[in-house]
Amino acid sequence: TTDLFKNEKNSTNYILTKHTFCFVWQIAMIILFGVFIRYDEESDTHWVETKAHDNITSDIENDFYFRYPSFQDVHVMIFVGFGFLMTFLKRYSFGAVGFNFLVASFGLQWALLMQGWFHSLDPQTGKIFIGVESLINADFCVAGCLIAYGAVLGKVSPVQLLVMTLFGVTLFAVEEYIILNLLHARDAGGSMVIHTFGGYYGLTISWVLYRPNLNQSKRMQGSVYHSDIFAMIGTLFLWMFWPSFNSAITDHGDGQHRAAINTYLCLASTVLTTVAISSLSQKTGKLDMVHIQNSTLAGGVALGTAAEFMISPYGALIVGFFCGIISTMGYIFISPFLEKTLKIQDTCGIHNLHAMPGVIGGIVGAITAAAASESVYGKQGLINTFDFTGDFKDRTVLTQGGYQAAGMCVSIVFGVVGGAIVGSILRLPIWGDPADENCFDDEVYWEVSLPDEEEEHQESIPPILEYNNHMIHKQQDL
Amino acid sequence: TTDLFKNEKNSTNYILTKHTFCFVWQIAMIILFGVFIRYDEESDTHWVETKAHDNITSDIENDFYFRYPSFQDVHVMIFVGFGFLMTFLKRYSFGAVGFNFLVASFGLQWALLMQGWFHSLDPQTGKIFIGVESLINADFCVAGCLIAYGAVLGKVSPVQLLVMTLFGVTLFAVEEYIILNLLHARDAGGSMVIHTFGGYYGLTISWVLYRPNLNQSKRMQGSVYHSDIFAMIGTLFLWMFWPSFNSAITDHGDGQHRAAINTYLCLASTVLTTVAISSLSQKTGKLDMVHIQNSTLAGGVALGTAAEFMISPYGALIVGFFCGIISTMGYIFISPFLEKTLKIQDTCGIHNLHAMPGVIGGIVGAITAAAASESVYGKQGLINTFDFTGDFKDRTVLTQGGYQAAGMCVSIVFGVVGGAIVGSILRLPIWGDPADENCFDDEVYWEVSLPDEEEEHQESIPPILEYNNHMIHKQQDL
Amino acid sequence: TTDLFKNEKNSTNYILTKHTFCFVWQIAMIILFGVFIRYDEESDTHWVETKAHDNITSDIENDFYFRYPSFQDVHVMIFVGFGFLMTFLKRYSFGAVGFNFLVASFGLQWALLMQGWFHSLDPQTGKIFIGVESLINADFCVAGCLIAYGAVLGKVSPVQLLVMTLFGVTLFAVEEYIILNLLHARDAGGSMVIHTFGGYYGLTISWVLYRPNLNQSKRMQGSVYHSDIFAMIGTLFLWMFWPSFNSAITDHGDGQHRAAINTYLCLASTVLTTVAISSLSQKTGKLDMVHIQNSTLAGGVALGTAAEFMISPYGALIVGFFCGIISTMGYIFISPFLEKTLKIQDTCGIHNLHAMPGVIGGIVGAITAAAASESVYGKQGLINTFDFTGDFKDRTVLTQGGYQAAGMCVSIVFGVVGGAIVGSILRLPIWGDPADENCFDDEVYWEVSLPDEEEEHQESIPPILEYNNHMIHKQQDL
Repeated sequence: TTDLFKNEKNSTNYILTKHTFCFVWQIAMIILFGVFIRYDEESDTHWVETKAHDNITSDIENDFYFRYPSFQDVHVMIFVGFGFLMTFLKRYSFGAVGFNFLVASFGLQWALLMQGWFHSLDPQTGKIFIGVESLINADFCVAGCLIAYGAVLGKVSPVQLLVMTLFGVTLFAVEEYIILNLLHARDAGGSMVIHTFGGYYGLTISWVLYRPNLNQSKRMQGSVYHSDIFAMIGTLFLWMFWPSFNSAITDHGDGQHRAAINTYLCLASTVLTTVAISSLSQKTGKLDMVHIQNSTLAGGVALGTAAEFMISPYGALIVGFFCGIISTMGYIFISPFLEKTLKIQDTCGIHNLHAMPGVIGGIVGAITAAAASESVYGKQGLINTFDFTGDFKDRTVLTQGGYQAAGMCVSIVFGVVGGAIVGSILRLPIWGDPADENCFDDEVYWEVSLPDEEEEHQESIPPILEYNNHMIHKQQDL
Repeated sequence: TTDLFKNEKNSTNYILTKHTFCFVWQIAMIILFGVFIRYDEESDTHWVETKAHDNITSDIENDFYFRYPSFQDVHVMIFVGFGFLMTFLKRYSFGAVGFNFLVASFGLQWALLMQGWFHSLDPQTGKIFIGVESLINADFCVAGCLIAYGAVLGKVSPVQLLVMTLFGVTLFAVEEYIILNLLHARDAGGSMVIHTFGGYYGLTISWVLYRPNLNQSKRMQGSVYHSDIFAMIGTLFLWMFWPSFNSAITDHGDGQHRAAINTYLCLASTVLTTVAISSLSQKTGKLDMVHIQNSTLAGGVALGTAAEFMISPYGALIVGFFCGIISTMGYIFISPFLEKTLKIQDTCGIHNLHAMPGVIGGIVGAITAAAASESVYGKQGLINTFDFTGDFKDRTVLTQGGYQAAGMCVSIVFGVVGGAIVGSILRLPIWGDPADENCFDDEVYWEVSLPDEEEEHQESIPPILEYNNHMIHKQQDL
Repeated sequence: TTDLFKNEKNSTNYILTKHTFCFVWQIAMIILFGVFIRYDEESDTHWVETKAHDNITSDIENDFYFRYPSFQDVHVMIFVGFGFLMTFLKRYSFGAVGFNFLVASFGLQWALLMQGWFHSLDPQTGKIFIGVESLINADFCVAGCLIAYGAVLGKVSPVQLLVMTLFGVTLFAVEEYIILNLLHARDAGGSMVIHTFGGYYGLTISWVLYRPNLNQSKRMQGSVYHSDIFAMIGTLFLWMFWPSFNSAITDHGDGQHRAAINTYLCLASTVLTTVAISSLSQKTGKLDMVHIQNSTLAGGVALGTAAEFMISPYGALIVGFFCGIISTMGYIFISPFLEKTLKIQDTCGIHNLHAMPGVIGGIVGAITAAAASESVYGKQGLINTFDFTGDFKDRTVLTQGGYQAAGMCVSIVFGVVGGAIVGSILRLPIWGDPADENCFDDEVYWEVSLPDEEEEHQESIPPILEYNNHMIHKQQDL
């Protein structure tokens, strides 16, 4: 009965823009894909000729069989992992899982084009040739934007999300090009490229969109028992499949093998220190679901760069050990500080789960790279791991460490500057963002059956009560 | 306290039949498997000799490694995907996920036999040799029956479901034999064989079992907040793993690779147009969870036939674009029309998710096949893709397009005629189907704790209220 | 407002112990991993040299590609499968999924060390070399402890769980060494090593920790509608991925292929007989969710040993047929008997899901091994399947059958004796176990929003009622 939108004009604009956005965008994608995107030689029917030409003896050597299982795991992380991780709010689960679905589907198409133009445009034909590795990279690119979504969850409209993603994917492709191609830094699991960038991008946007009166929607900000269990679905699928995330695009053979082992170990270690700190933080020694849902994942983020290196099993455990501590401490001490002092409202605490661990991951990567040696890696192993070929064949591991560190700075700069610009665009009063009192409420954007209608036992409440309820509602409306 | 069954006699019959059905059937399966089913040469201990004989150098060339990851994804789609997609009803989630579990486990055994007899019975030994591809095909066959379940969800007894599945699998094996073997049509992801057949089979059964007084269970027909989120688990696992579904039994190498890429792209496109139409359909611009849960999947259905063809990436996007529009429109306009005018009650809207997109998929497949050319596919690529070998080595692509279209007609005819016959059998008053007022209610078939007992805070309602509740209940009983 | 801990002193001890335990343990792990654990030759950068040395032509022959998809499925079973299967209790879902997460992460690190010392310590270097198979084995080892957790779910503190796991993993590694290495029994899916051991270990601990006044927490012992659906997530992921569980470490090629087929068939059969018996057990013919959630999995347990043998497809169906019956009967008849007569309180009914089916699996394995013949397996096939090489090259199948049976006895003895010892340790009054009236209640160990706060519609309850509620609460406090 009450108007859900603060500003009638905004809501009209918003409705127009949303449909148009999806339609126009999808038509543009079809045209651009028609012009640019083609199957690569491993997914084209001419594969039979490629095989003969390259003396490939078996279909099993098609890259599909090296990467498809990892791709599917990553795909689950993007859609179920990120989607359900954000369902913890008591009345924003539709928005969490539904807008995550929309944004990811939207972003991955644009990512295929942007990453194609920057990384794999064939100069002769002017085409982008895609295969399973392109799909993984598109999912990775989208992950950066979904991380940013975590900071503004419940406070922005779907159109704002789509705009955030449009610019986010664009910025991602550029910083990725600079870090991986120009600086020739290694970042297979994206500590820098995905998590640091995505984290600071989202935090800066949230800072620009600061809402001083957000406590007006306080009653919507908590979780309920079942929404916390839904969120654990997201946590666990992210946690379990993170070894696939960090190994999905590493080298065939030992590269994928080692990245999976390192991530598996690192994450196990993170769980223990997360539990320890969470329990220490409460006088009663009780555990906080927020920490279990989020900080347990920090180890995977922090091993994104170094997972494919010879960091050794105990090295992976050490990284996880500290990440669990730092991330949980972040939820306890840093998040309140960010909100009060720096005016950064971070709904999901992405600073603790992505930004900080991402930076740690960049540093770990730089140190591990600088410390690499032929005695540990072997001559050819060192070349393979750091791709010291072509223009970079004379690079030393120390130089590599320096470029790794430079890469991390690039990702922070892109996140902060990009976030500031995009945040300013999103502040324009044309996007139909929800009023402060409607934040974290699915009813603004979804057809939701009212709680009163939901609970069947309400039917048995006697008429006198129904009447009273009705009176109270009426009074609230006045 | 009230009798849940309209007819005491039915309920007795039903109880007898249900146990007997499961036991007798399982014993029959054991006997038939004993007579007919054996391991194929890749899953038999004699594989070591096969390897030596065929000069296979590595165990990795066993078909298991080409198809097992896809198989597991398909398996998840059947049991978690279909099962949870149907949990959206507020009080039929046990039935959705539980009967889906029962029906699929029952059907896949019968499917291995039926498909074996029709497709792979060894003429010399009279045996059926099974491997991982047989398991995928059995899961596919069961999918057809689970689609049909969607139309009658909440309105039939478990025994009716088992009978539906028994006949459904049988019909499936026959139409599949006609379409794939006799007509030599291609249909790797089953747009025709699985979705069109399953859709019309279920719709026709639902038409025969029309319940004019179904509004007596109106209070049970909606969803509640958490049941909609459970349904999203089903949606997402179907959506994410659909590339595996469409590529699971395509050719090794580029065939699987291309089918996965096409499906991935098509589904992303579907999400955007589904959101656009869903939002357009409401004055407020709000989204409807029903559309997001179902129509986002239509693209995967519609690419079932053409996924392995060189439809090209933008072609996949175009298919997804239109499927999202048509499927969502279906929920808004066609479903109410079907119910009012044609008397087809379609609980899950399978007409919009499977039947229509399936037909579109058949048409897309026929056109794409007819338009195939040696310049695009390459000489050998064309032969491989359409299997122009043996009896079919002189077939042209135009002829192939015609046979594809013929295949689609076969699947529709089998669905409608089969559904009419099976529906008539299910109308016999011996199956213990629930009364109109007990539809969509788990309590008929499951031990369920009453809602009153569930909510702990009820304990704190003061005695005066408890008393009133009790009075009201008593009055209702009278 | 009331003190949740019976004994103030215990609670203090518990708080101290819990943090310390996690920290000290994780630091110990880092040190031990630093001393002992290294990458194996397939996950080390020297793989490029190994390949050249061993004439391996392609990276795809790295063990990673044989086992990683199965590993990820097993990983999902451990964390989502076991975790969500135990969420059925109305107010212990945090504990179920959260402590499962903690215990598994804790146990797998210790498992890598213990299994490494016993199975793969390199005598020359004194190092343990790990690869993807080691990760699978660590997950398997943890599974044994999670099974035991099922028996004591809701009745022990997290520290008790960690102690149980610490000893459980240790015992597991020893019995596994005796059964697989000394007795040279085959047990790829762990009917004996994992399920029988884990089952009896947990049951014996539960027996030692018998709580005569457990009915004081009776109001917490049931499930609610949504918690039962959460549990079905666990059930289905266990059920679907069990073929991967039983085939994860079997022989490359036909071994993995056959184990997956057998388990797939066996589980399908189990579902039908479970439904039949569950329905038969109620006068009304209704189904019980407890049976569907648990007994449907018994077939996978019982085929753990024989899955890789030539048990033949109908053999797998027969095993599933009887396991569904026996396991469901167990829930109906044996569990109440165990509780009343033997004083074993088994929260999740692991006796019916793991212990009994595990013993059946051991017997099936022994019989199938003893009945193996060269005519069925082929000469080389027999040697490969039972690994009749080295010291065991002259072993006959009959002898093998005997050793299989001996292996099963070892697993039972380790479970019972180990459980008795560990149970006695856990009875010491220093672990902060919950009081009888606080069992099955998340509030003891987790920050939980109160149910009253959760339900928004409570807000609309008129003041008079709120007051009454308050009065009643006060009275209860007195």
